[in-house]
Parts: sequence; C-alpha cells; structure tokens
Amino acid sequence: MSIFSVDVGGTNIRCAVVSTDGEILHRKQLPTPPGLNPNGLLAILKEQAKLAGDEIRSRGLSIEAAGVAVPAPVPMGRDAKLTQVPNLPGLEGVRLSAMLSDGLGVRVLVENDAAAAAVGENWKGASRGANTSAYISLGTGIGGGLIIDGRLRRGPDGSAGEIGHICIEKNGRKCGCGSRGCFEQYASAGAILRLARRNGLKVATSEQVFELARHGNRDAMLVFQRVGYYLGILSAALINSINPDSIVFGGKVAGAMRFFGESLKKEAGYRSFRAPFRRCSIVRGKLGDDAAILGVARCVTARDDEADRKHP
Amino acid sequence: MSIFSVDVGGTNIRCAVVSTDGEILHRKQLPTPPGLNPNGLLAILKEQAKLAGDEIRSRGLSIEAAGVAVPAPVPMGRDAKLTQVPNLPGLEGVRLSAMLSDGLGVRVLVENDAAAAAVGENWKGASRGANTSAYISLGTGIGGGLIIDGRLRRGPDGSAGEIGHICIEKNGRKCGCGSRGCFEQYASAGAILRLARRNGLKVATSEQVFELARHGNRDAMLVFQRVGYYLGILSAALINSINPDSIVFGGKVAGAMRFFGESLKKEAGYRSFRAPFRRCSIVRGKLGDDAAILGVARCVTARDDEADRKHP
Repeated sequence: MSIFSVDVGGTNIRCAVVSTDGEILHRKQLPTPPGLNPNGLLAILKEQAKLAGDEIRSRGLSIEAAGVAVPAPVPMGRDAKLTQVPNLPGLEGVRLSAMLSDGLGVRVLVENDAAAAAVGENWKGASRGANTSAYISLGTGIGGGLIIDGRLRRGPDGSAGEIGHICIEKNGRKCGCGSRGCFEQYASAGAILRLARRNGLKVATSEQVFELARHGNRDAMLVFQRVGYYLGILSAALINSINPDSIVFGGKVAGAMRFFGESLKKEAGYRSFRAPFRRCSIVRGKLGDDAAILGVARCVTARDDEADRKHP
Repeated sequence: MSIFSVDVGGTNIRCAVVSTDGEILHRKQLPTPPGLNPNGLLAILKEQAKLAGDEIRSRGLSIEAAGVAVPAPVPMGRDAKLTQVPNLPGLEGVRLSAMLSDGLGVRVLVENDAAAAAVGENWKGASRGANTSAYISLGTGIGGGLIIDGRLRRGPDGSAGEIGHICIEKNGRKCGCGSRGCFEQYASAGAILRLARRNGLKVATSEQVFELARHGNRDAMLVFQRVGYYLGILSAALINSINPDSIVFGGKVAGAMRFFGESLKKEAGYRSFRAPFRRCSIVRGKLGDDAAILGVARCVTARDDEADRKHP
C-alpha cells in the first residue's frame, strides 16, 4: 500500500508518499500560506496528491489512503472536530478527517503531529523496539506522544501526551493553554529566547542562542543547561509514572541536545526511581522532519491491522 | 475459581477469598507483626490460606490461586525481586512471588497495592466502565495506579503509576524516594500533619486534623484546601497527559474529600485542557479497604484470560 502522508505545520506543509514498510517514495515541501483555511488546505493537498500519484504511477503504484499530521489535539472518530489549533487557527472547528476524506476520495486519518512523530521514531527511529516510549517535541511549544505497550495512546479527546502542559512552577508564567507554569514555558524555543534575553544576550531567535552556544558563549550554554534542568524534571515525571524504555527528544530544539543533555540526565537521575531510570534511554530523535510523515503513515496501516484483527 | 487474596500493609494484613465474579466469600484481618520478614509472612499466609480453604470447602469450593498486594513497586516476572519496600523493609530483596508460590503450593501473583486498588475500583467500584482511569492512594505516602485502555500499566520495573513522585516544588522538601518536592510531600497524611502543625494546630495525627475540620475548625479546613490545591495540579497533569475517564482517590485521606474536593476540582479545571477535563470524573473510591483485595484477585483472573488469549 502507498500512503499519501502530510505534515501540516505553522511554517511548512510537507507532503510525501510512504510505503507500508516505511520507504519514502516521494517528497515535497511547501510554505504554509498565511491564514490557511480548510478549503485552502484541501486545494493544496488535492494538487499534491495528484502530483504524487502521477509520480508513483510510473512504478505501478497508487495512493490508497492518506495520513495528515496537524499541530493540535485530534479527538477520536472520523467526525470529530479540531477544537484548539493555536498555530493554524483557520482549522478550528473543522471536521478535518471527514472533509479531507470526502475531498481527496481516499480514507484520511488525521493525527496530532507530535503523536505521529512518536510513532515514527518508534517504527523507524530512535525508540525502535521500545515497548513503551515517550516522545517530546521541542519547538515553539512542547508537544508529546506516548507509546504504551506498543500502541500510541491519545485518549478519546486526543489530548493524551500533552506533557508540555504538566505544571512545574505553580505560580509561574501564564501559558497559552490557560494554566500557568507549564513545562512549555521553561523548555521550549520560546523559553530559550526569553531566558537568553533575560541573561543579557542580544538575540532574536532561539537558533541564535544555539549559534552562540556553538561558538562557546557561556551565557548561551547556561541557558541550555537551565532548559536541560527542567527537561530532566519532566523526564523523571515520565520515568516514575509510565516506566518507559526510552524518551526521545525531537523538534528543532532537540538539535541542541549536546548542550542540554548532560544537565537533563543528571536531573532526571536525581528525581527518578532507580530501576526505571537505569532502564530508560534518553536520546535525540533520529528521523528529524520525517518523524511525523513516517509516523502518520504508520498510523494509517496500523489502523488497518487493527480493523483486521477486530473483523477477521 | 476462588482466589486467596491478601493485602499486606504496614499496619494490617487483610486476607480474603474472592470469587471470579468479585464476591468476597471470606475475610480476616490481622495486625502486621513488627519487623515482618519473608518467612514470617509465609507462615501467616499458610495458616490463613488453610483456614480460608477449610471454610469455603463446606460450599464445595477450593482455593486455586492467590494474589498478594504489597506496598512496593513490583517488577514483572515470577522471579523478580522487590527492591524498595520502605514500609516493610524485611521484604526487600525477596523474590516474593516465587517464594509464596512454592510455599503455598498455588500460583501467586504479587502486585503493588495501589495498582491493585486501581484495578479493584475499575472492576467493581468508582471507575467501573472507565476505559482509562487513574487511581491515587492518599495514605502515609501517595501511591497510584494507571488503567490505560482497559489494562493496568505497571511497566517492566513495576514503577509505572508512581505519580506521587512527580515533582511540583523543584527546591522543595526532601522525599523518601531520594528526590525533593514530590507531590507526596504536599498532599499525603504526613503532609497534612506537618501543614496543620505549621499552622499552629496541636495535633498528633492527620485523623485529628480531619476531626477538627469536621467540627468546623477553620485552620484545619484550610489545611485540606491546600492539599486539594496540590491534588488539583496533580490531577491536571494526569488529565493532560493520559486523558482519563476518571480519577479515583482512595486511601485513608480520601475520607476527607469533602474538605479538599472543591479546591482540587477548581485547580484541576484551571490547569487542564478543556475537553479532557469535562470528560474526567474526579471521585472518591467506593470500595474502601476492599479495593486492593478485589483488585489483586482480578489481576489473577485477568492474567489467566490473557494467557488464554495468547494460547487458545
């Protein structure tokens, strides 16, 4: 089976065709148009699905299903509405799976992007072979996905795995989720930038903080150590509460893991139960931007397997 | 099938015989001898299993397996050792399942007590029918058990569900687990007593704080409000990360839920994503001291069901 696999982000839309065994047969990236709405997204995906279909036809293949990863909690069920999509507000209130299935003429599975990436890394990447694994996506915010006993667990409202919104500073910074003091406020790209500026660094993006650290700037390195400290506390929460075989860090900030990995592991070790800490490998993702594309394709085929098991 | 079901606590050992459909056919409670060691426990259980077996024999029944709940993480596998048993240190380093199976002459499943209680409440109690449910045991410490998609998840080291050891005060009180600032330090019976004394109440136990609250003492009521505040933050962490249908509070402190329930729900609502918060019922357990006895019996029969599924 060939799956049309899409990762819709706030900045880019990545399209690919993925085979059942995880080969990427085709790939295309486009900038996300400002103010993207459902019809705009459908038009883009229709066009890209046609191009992709034409390309793989020469190999005797065709697109049989589609998977779409989005930066939002995705409730269960074909008719479920997206309710909170802060980075793509034009998609709020949309029954995306039903709309895209009708529009593209194939079955479309929609999944949260970090959850999809968790599946991708578990299938072909850093947590391959792990029975239980947490994926933490470090970008503008902190996303997450939990694989427990071999299956992605998203919950009926699609919010399971939103570990960036566990509280660590009860009277801390206001968070976009409505609460305050969530880990997202202390260990995301936004947090890095804020922390760096507070420490007197003249930077406009978290990437610049990374560049400074790479050139040996001590203040920039201290920023990442602080981020690692918080991520260590978060990792310990996961180790103590789900006993995972691995915790995988992805997203653009994970590229700086060499600057925050040490403080992260030290803090996680201090705060975790011993046996599960020793078991858990804490690593950077291996698939980069392909994690969600591969993962959502895997979700499509896994859903089929499951249906087969239920209705043999 | 009739199961000899035991809950080994720091204070009492509760023995029972439970039928496959959850009827308690016999029950006996003994004080836990000081300095309980493995041979002492085996002797008690042998005697109690014989008494219980004699009693149900008159009904044409016999004991076919046993389940034992203990206040410790229980690693997977018949030969796994208990490594950390703070309330019964005499059992540390013991391969309890193997030892009791050999000694009692029936298969013995050992499970963590809060995990067993989670299963009990999900089977016959407050979270009946819930697909995903968290159980939080409020006693001397805070224990927990997670039922995710219909199954207890303990992890290979048996530590999954140790949600009392998620950190909330990063520089807070030293915790018995080796970390500091764990929820256990702010919302257990020990925390209640400490908080009450700090607020000037002359009390020797958390039960006395409860009695004062029951008689309208405002300072005692404020203590429980504070406990509810922390438990609300913990509940939100669970709601955001596992999207449960219910969170059930058990253990002796849960009896005071009328004094901490309101602040708990208020704080949980403030800090949770909306849809999963609306879904989640936050309630007191229904089974009291029977939760672990019923749950561990259920674990024994469920393990059989599973083996049947794997080897039909």
